[in-house]
Amino acid sequence: MNIAVLGTGVTGETIGTKLIQLGHEVMLGSREAANAAAVAWAKDAGQHAVYGTFQNAAEFGEIIFNCTLGSASLEALEQAGAENLKGKILIDTSNPLDRSTDMWTLTVCNTDSLGEQIQRAFPETKVVKTLNTVNANVMVDPAKLLERTHVFVSGNDIEAKATVVRILRDWFGWREIIDLGGSVEMYVLLWHSLRNAISSQRFNIKVVTS
Amino acid sequence: MNIAVLGTGVTGETIGTKLIQLGHEVMLGSREAANAAAVAWAKDAGQHAVYGTFQNAAEFGEIIFNCTLGSASLEALEQAGAENLKGKILIDTSNPLDRSTDMWTLTVCNTDSLGEQIQRAFPETKVVKTLNTVNANVMVDPAKLLERTHVFVSGNDIEAKATVVRILRDWFGWREIIDLGGSVEMYVLLWHSLRNAISSQRFNIKVVTS
Repeated sequence: MNIAVLGTGVTGETIGTKLIQLGHEVMLGSREAANAAAVAWAKDAGQHAVYGTFQNAAEFGEIIFNCTLGSASLEALEQAGAENLKGKILIDTSNPLDRSTDMWTLTVCNTDSLGEQIQRAFPETKVVKTLNTVNANVMVDPAKLLERTHVFVSGNDIEAKATVVRILRDWFGWREIIDLGGSVEMYVLLWHSLRNAISSQRFNIKVVTS
Repeated sequence: MNIAVLGTGVTGETIGTKLIQLGHEVMLGSREAANAAAVAWAKDAGQHAVYGTFQNAAEFGEIIFNCTLGSASLEALEQAGAENLKGKILIDTSNPLDRSTDMWTLTVCNTDSLGEQIQRAFPETKVVKTLNTVNANVMVDPAKLLERTHVFVSGNDIEAKATVVRILRDWFGWREIIDLGGSVEMYVLLWHSLRNAISSQRFNIKVVTS
């Protein structure tokens, strides 16, 4: 499948590399056509890895991963173009973080979320929020943790969510997937505190019932 | 030990009853001296259970649990009186929730928190935030869940946190306690979504590492 990954940070490259390993054609999208990180990534990742602008990538992808920084996501998607995102599933992994200080804060929270902002800005795109509660290495390889943990999906389109659940399960190896109504972005600040408390980014939460 | 529990809702009564079972003297505090719920609770809970105003309770308690609704906590603590809280540990279980609609929102979040507001308002009290990430029945009986899960503490006073860790462990049976820097209140909205997703309040999260 042709897949677009928007964003050339650790998340974009990690997901892009995993998708290549799974046999997909991946275009890594960025602000510039020949972003240095994207060029280096494509060279390492082999012949099925290409790069281009956000617009090139969105045109190319049948499914699109948003792996841009949350603070830049709306602008990146504007550059990708509503026409190129129309009718497609957008898997939104971003968190609306302001990381300009050691104390992370959110740029949107409580009564609204970045996922909802993106859905409102691109009403003809099927936005599914997921994977934003774990670090990139956990996203694509949850089995590396000592136990099965949970990942969450949220979004308005039931069929799109079902497709994303299959992607999470069959491609990335997630076994415990919970469909939430929303409100998953604010967890990131607890994640940040946990990361500092346990001095590791390689962790996740498991929901335990009685 | 003489312990004050501020708030006569499910959390206050559940914690109060547990403390009575552990052999403590408990005063349940509320806005009025003879709150109907407090009177009924004390009658059920036996001779070591008493009730009074927030002020009576704060005077009585060597340790104070804040189990009021987050939206009412600062006012309840004002009524309790800074002099009666001075030098004491305040175990703050509250969440700053506006539950006036089905979609819960927070009254304070992101760059501030209710726990920090309370600490600023009562600088001579040792505020330790904990237990606000679980339902009342899980607070006092975490062993009822299928696996060991995590509870978090945060606060500025190291000795007070150590005392609260002992209380959580020796009185309530918590075995996995993580000292966070902060930011634990915003998790409550994920908790709310999880509650709706799994149709149960009897759950908690476990932090799983690699």
